[in-house]
Amino acid sequence: MGQTNEFSHRMAAKTIKLLDSSGNPIAGKKVELKQTNHKFLFGAGIFDMVELANKNVPSERMAFLEEQLDKFLDVFNFGTLPFYWGRFEPEKGKPQTKELKAAANWLKERNVAVKGHPLCWHTVTAPWLLDMSNEEILQAQFNRIERDVSDFKGLIDMWDVINEVVIMPIFDKYDNGITRIAKDLGRVGIVKEMFAKTRESNPDATLLINDFNTSINYEILIDGCLQAGVPIDAIGIQSHQHQGYWGREKLEEVLERFSHFGLPIHFTENTLTSGHVMPPQIEDLNDYQLSEWPSTQEFEERQAMEVEEMYSVLFKHPLVEAITAWSFSDDGAWLGAPAGFLRKDNSPKPAYHVLKKLIKQDWNTNVTTTTDENGTVLFEGFLGEHDLLCGDKKVSFQLDKEASTIQLVI
Amino acid sequence: MGQTNEFSHRMAAKTIKLLDSSGNPIAGKKVELKQTNHKFLFGAGIFDMVELANKNVPSERMAFLEEQLDKFLDVFNFGTLPFYWGRFEPEKGKPQTKELKAAANWLKERNVAVKGHPLCWHTVTAPWLLDMSNEEILQAQFNRIERDVSDFKGLIDMWDVINEVVIMPIFDKYDNGITRIAKDLGRVGIVKEMFAKTRESNPDATLLINDFNTSINYEILIDGCLQAGVPIDAIGIQSHQHQGYWGREKLEEVLERFSHFGLPIHFTENTLTSGHVMPPQIEDLNDYQLSEWPSTQEFEERQAMEVEEMYSVLFKHPLVEAITAWSFSDDGAWLGAPAGFLRKDNSPKPAYHVLKKLIKQDWNTNVTTTTDENGTVLFEGFLGEHDLLCGDKKVSFQLDKEASTIQLVI
Repeated sequence: MGQTNEFSHRMAAKTIKLLDSSGNPIAGKKVELKQTNHKFLFGAGIFDMVELANKNVPSERMAFLEEQLDKFLDVFNFGTLPFYWGRFEPEKGKPQTKELKAAANWLKERNVAVKGHPLCWHTVTAPWLLDMSNEEILQAQFNRIERDVSDFKGLIDMWDVINEVVIMPIFDKYDNGITRIAKDLGRVGIVKEMFAKTRESNPDATLLINDFNTSINYEILIDGCLQAGVPIDAIGIQSHQHQGYWGREKLEEVLERFSHFGLPIHFTENTLTSGHVMPPQIEDLNDYQLSEWPSTQEFEERQAMEVEEMYSVLFKHPLVEAITAWSFSDDGAWLGAPAGFLRKDNSPKPAYHVLKKLIKQDWNTNVTTTTDENGTVLFEGFLGEHDLLCGDKKVSFQLDKEASTIQLVI
Repeated sequence: MGQTNEFSHRMAAKTIKLLDSSGNPIAGKKVELKQTNHKFLFGAGIFDMVELANKNVPSERMAFLEEQLDKFLDVFNFGTLPFYWGRFEPEKGKPQTKELKAAANWLKERNVAVKGHPLCWHTVTAPWLLDMSNEEILQAQFNRIERDVSDFKGLIDMWDVINEVVIMPIFDKYDNGITRIAKDLGRVGIVKEMFAKTRESNPDATLLINDFNTSINYEILIDGCLQAGVPIDAIGIQSHQHQGYWGREKLEEVLERFSHFGLPIHFTENTLTSGHVMPPQIEDLNDYQLSEWPSTQEFEERQAMEVEEMYSVLFKHPLVEAITAWSFSDDGAWLGAPAGFLRKDNSPKPAYHVLKKLIKQDWNTNVTTTTDENGTVLFEGFLGEHDLLCGDKKVSFQLDKEASTIQLVI
């Protein structure tokens, strides 16, 4: 604590009046105020959750995943689950709704907020769209959104509605149904349609647009969408840094440009590896195929420093509300990169400890004080869920920016 | 003629029934059909017009300009006049309305369509905006549009409403009032405001957005504007090729991308020089300063070939409706480049003859035929104004795609 100025947008001061069950002030008692959850979303892609929650892996693997998930739950409060259409519904009409519900429920029960990713994307989309007319593809995409967003309402209330729209209509690696309809509708047109359908299916959900392109293209796209009335709740920025850490300067430059809209910003897919850097001439990261991409001690130290700096820059920025590390573990990480906070054997890297310290100590409320004669304490803490402990009693409350005084009965 | 397929979108077939003043068919008579003007706009920047029409130069210079203008009128039917705010109204409240009206009138009397350029741009804008608040700048810009577009209604019904919006909010060469309000409004926002005000001031005018940036940025900007309901009538594309001719492939690629909107396309500022090519490392063309940039015989031949190919590609494309050569003459050409169709001494370059042949011969109606016993002739010609000559009599008519039969009294 103490960094009040730097993080004032993440904090609130609150006067608590503590009463016993008869309504009498609890005066002159020692109380502890401990944060149990952050308002800020510290997340990770947690795709293995689907296997785990559905218990459809060998027991040894289950134990391994459980250990992994325990380490995840020790630090993070937010998880992204995969809704890639081509995997979610490989056969038309047979979506993996049950499996994904089990995963989302598992996380919800453990107080982890969940985001679904993505509803509309040209990559890993349903192959059976290719047999349809463009009109039928659009209708199938609408139906998919309506079905899945409705099915998961209450369980998943945050969606990456549409992914990588800048390249979507000109994506030419292979033919796919979504690029076809993006050509028809135009970029702003397809964003508008997909957001309208998602909003209709879950009026209270937080809806994101998401892209790896952080150039002026994406700025103008968002500008156009907002002027066209598209209800974007948050701007998603991918930051896969396999080719080297962006550094503070680029980070601040990107934040500056995307702050103009005044909308919340989510770093939706962040990668910082603990391995060698991918050569700069690789244009599509998917083209870089290695039999092994080792995590080394030297690079683990570098990763830890980068994690510390990057998370600090983002946590300091008033519009950033979420950071998702794309790979929580090197086990099964995208492109085989050593991009996780855990090694393949589940042992934590230095970056894990660094991030845990930031989230659980440096940016965490942990106050011990004594109530005055009226039973009140004044304290300042980080926004989110808290426990107040007094003797062997405990009461939970939310620290927010709303009222400056609250009354708690313990 | 004869290239019916290639240019069918530029042509119409028409049956003319020719009657005498008593209403009797003129049978078995020889008639000539001659095109007097193109529907297609073949234009040039014709800024010297202001001096000429206002007769405020020495008589020798007047004679020189008149000779230049005669050569312009021999080939072109469309002129762009300068409305750069900083020159049009260098002192607040003293616009050069009278001078520009004289120029526009001079052109109108000679059947030359006129476009005003530009209403809103961050370069050469009024310096006195710098003393104002952003709210006042926006109001001044609105007032400027309302005043000038209203003043010139009927005389100028085509406007480059806003110029170079992709760079506008991030233009950092020097502070200026328009960049300031572009930062506030955002790109789509400022386009929307300027178009709304222009449309309000002249509901029937043809309104263009214009840019030198032909990248995806501009595509997304237009996409966003259209989705936001901005009434863009035509897409303006600059093509200053001081650093070398784009070539057929790039031209067709640009046409393909900007055709998706289905809107008319104007090549608003075209430059093909008859001198050496500007080095590729120059990023802002304005940074290239030479004491002399000569027109040479070798490069004049190259220019002529480029003009022939480029105009042919554009004339062939159904959505292109106008091409404006930015410099008609080397005399006073932008950047001192030998970018004109005339040399500094007013002598025509090969490109002039090539273009004149295309416009006045190859793409021109010139039919001699004989009326049948009912006084009718069937002919095919290029869209635009025509004369029908029969003996010593003449009647003018418009060749359009509307009715297939018209009746003319001679």
